[in-house]
Amino acid sequence: MPHTPLPERHALIELKDQLPEQIVEAGPDLDRLARDSSRYSPQGHPLAVVMATCTDDVVTALAWANRHGVPVSVRGAGTGLAGGAVAYDQGLVISMERCNAIRQIDPVNRLAVVEAGVITADLDRAAREHGLFFPPDPASVETSTVGGNIATNAGGLRCISHGVTRDSVAALEVVLADGRIMHTGTRTRKNVVGLDLTSLFVGSEGTLGVITAATVRLKPIPPGTSHTFRVNFDSIHAAGEAVTEIVNGEAQPEVLELLDTHSVKTIEEFYPSGLTVPKAALLIGQTVGHNAADDAKAITDICARHGGSDVVIAQSDELLEARRLANPALSARGLRVSCDVGVPIGELANVFRGIDEIAAKHNRKISIVAHAGDGNLHPTVEAGDTEAEYAAAEAVIVDISQLAVSLGGTISGEHGIGAVKHHELPIQLDAAVLDTQRAIKQALDPNGILTPDRAI
Amino acid sequence: MPHTPLPERHALIELKDQLPEQIVEAGPDLDRLARDSSRYSPQGHPLAVVMATCTDDVVTALAWANRHGVPVSVRGAGTGLAGGAVAYDQGLVISMERCNAIRQIDPVNRLAVVEAGVITADLDRAAREHGLFFPPDPASVETSTVGGNIATNAGGLRCISHGVTRDSVAALEVVLADGRIMHTGTRTRKNVVGLDLTSLFVGSEGTLGVITAATVRLKPIPPGTSHTFRVNFDSIHAAGEAVTEIVNGEAQPEVLELLDTHSVKTIEEFYPSGLTVPKAALLIGQTVGHNAADDAKAITDICARHGGSDVVIAQSDELLEARRLANPALSARGLRVSCDVGVPIGELANVFRGIDEIAAKHNRKISIVAHAGDGNLHPTVEAGDTEAEYAAAEAVIVDISQLAVSLGGTISGEHGIGAVKHHELPIQLDAAVLDTQRAIKQALDPNGILTPDRAI
Repeated sequence: MPHTPLPERHALIELKDQLPEQIVEAGPDLDRLARDSSRYSPQGHPLAVVMATCTDDVVTALAWANRHGVPVSVRGAGTGLAGGAVAYDQGLVISMERCNAIRQIDPVNRLAVVEAGVITADLDRAAREHGLFFPPDPASVETSTVGGNIATNAGGLRCISHGVTRDSVAALEVVLADGRIMHTGTRTRKNVVGLDLTSLFVGSEGTLGVITAATVRLKPIPPGTSHTFRVNFDSIHAAGEAVTEIVNGEAQPEVLELLDTHSVKTIEEFYPSGLTVPKAALLIGQTVGHNAADDAKAITDICARHGGSDVVIAQSDELLEARRLANPALSARGLRVSCDVGVPIGELANVFRGIDEIAAKHNRKISIVAHAGDGNLHPTVEAGDTEAEYAAAEAVIVDISQLAVSLGGTISGEHGIGAVKHHELPIQLDAAVLDTQRAIKQALDPNGILTPDRAI
Repeated sequence: MPHTPLPERHALIELKDQLPEQIVEAGPDLDRLARDSSRYSPQGHPLAVVMATCTDDVVTALAWANRHGVPVSVRGAGTGLAGGAVAYDQGLVISMERCNAIRQIDPVNRLAVVEAGVITADLDRAAREHGLFFPPDPASVETSTVGGNIATNAGGLRCISHGVTRDSVAALEVVLADGRIMHTGTRTRKNVVGLDLTSLFVGSEGTLGVITAATVRLKPIPPGTSHTFRVNFDSIHAAGEAVTEIVNGEAQPEVLELLDTHSVKTIEEFYPSGLTVPKAALLIGQTVGHNAADDAKAITDICARHGGSDVVIAQSDELLEARRLANPALSARGLRVSCDVGVPIGELANVFRGIDEIAAKHNRKISIVAHAGDGNLHPTVEAGDTEAEYAAAEAVIVDISQLAVSLGGTISGEHGIGAVKHHELPIQLDAAVLDTQRAIKQALDPNGILTPDRAI
């Protein structure tokens, strides 16, 4: 998408007349709202931020931006890791954080209607009052928004059992590039009327429209108590093989995570909790339901057959806390370049082997945290704060992306493409897909104002 | 979409040169392949049918049709009920029935790669050799194709437990309008790279491209034995309330179907099996897994609390056979006009009440067969073989569609829009959705050759 001609700043006067209370033009809020949680920085200064308070504010803002050809970025809570929400130079940021009403919890139909800016964990808590929960569970659940989760089709720790965010979205309220409001989907389980625009907009990362509200699916809280388990492995390949067998077994975990030695050590350094550091990898997980205890036993028995040791099974969430601390602990060590590849579950041992080879080729340590149960890996390369160091780390990441795709996998399992991964798209997508995406984008956003040059 | 100018028949010579063995220009096969299983008839004669034997044949056919502006309909096994696959006058039919190779069964990753023309039940049988099964289970499973199921996002009897066809599709091979081949999706559980073109093409009813192959997800065969159950009700509203409570309970059925008195009587007349005819409705279902027997008991207990009687629980499939006979039996009675509405599960009793009112208003008997567990109803109106009779029945159907949408539902849960329901689209879809669909169609098929004027 080409950048459209930028308006003179005086065009903003028109928007300020319409949204006097919602516009932020300067100050610390502008700086905060110009960024997300990625390493991607704004390439200039946004014209302004619209703190939308309702769908009509978004209508007004987009109609204005479309008239004046102003590039728009859309922001939930800014927890994205791909630079998708980062402000454009002389662009407009639409922040959805004030559109945060839970419009309805409908326990009989297990649906909730929420505005885009609702914090994901707040929706989950509201659902739990009715014996239900909201399945999507990204690590940022306490700060990220439902709208942001939907726009990026967020993953998380429970995807192995509850699917990705798309699986929990029934219907959307969207504002299109020209300011028209569109309602996709229904409140039913089945619906085959027309194109599946709901799925198309989930994960579209702000390129096709602004998601202002959603009807999402809730699930009943599993009965019984949950059990957590942990197992150490001397070989990460053996851990991979154990995961493949677990996923193909009868007892299914709700969560199944892998941390390599380096990641466990780093967590222990920053938040000492007495974790035994494994020789190669730690597998950690959770089972739920009436058979949770038996399932945890069956799963750890499989691990033992693959050389797992130091098995611990417990009835608390504490074991999983270590996993949730991985990101902050690794980040605290300094600059790192990480990725988000996914492979079919049967290729786990092979992807670990391939990563070993890439590490050897580049003579760099690659550490791994993985949502092992769904084949989604976050390999990380530490890098010094120089351009050369950064480029060297980036070359490692590109090799890992190519490896994942060669195994039938993906360059991004849950973080999205945004600005950061945009150059990697041709590794995975063929020319016909790239052209089709651009054709759809052009058809829905002919002036190219919505998150241009990113995601697709 | 406007019909594009029709070519002279001599343009076909060019295509026959390229696909000499694949072209059918006349004979009973042409008549058969010009129709589907709906009441919608071809409005003229197709130019020819291409019996595609591989993806390249589809490439050749579409490139030719696009060059000459020939309208194309795509046909699996012709079991569709919406007229989506019916031939266009002077159009080209692409039949996928000879593209029927199962390219791969990958038990470790629980995936299969199949060509579009594979019979759905054949794929299921191939998967069962590995302890797996293919979840989509439309009533036509023994004759319909995987490609047709995907193109229509087919439903069926097991959607309550296993979702719709879309939930089982991981990746697609598609030929675009201009003959380019596109590969969407991945073999992974998670993938957030670019737009979800896989979901967009599932259920697009031939309007965006021709699906030539798919990577589909398989599931493990549930352990234990399955149990079936049946319960009679004196009130269909009470049956609806029982279903709502069952779906919100802990014990979940794999199948949960409802037949009203008229439907049960009709089945008994055509295939006597000793079914007790209920006063108002028969609820019939299946449970699977280790707790199948307890679950069937728990479900029928709920029914009893809502006035259900004549409870039978059995370990055989026979009880469900009656349900599978409903369509042929009802069809054997003569012309009927049926629909395929869906409502949120909490609205079942309300939709039954509303249908009573519509029946009274039109002074017509409306009989109902329903995938009750997912809120998908097939109300039927019998009609004599005159245009006036048909129009009167159609007016009843439109009222039922409006009722369903007013309850948060859909005008089609699983049969699709095709040609038959095209006039009903505005009942459900707002102007922005209709415009967006058309914009996407125009972007991907600028000459409007693919299933024009249908589905969207």
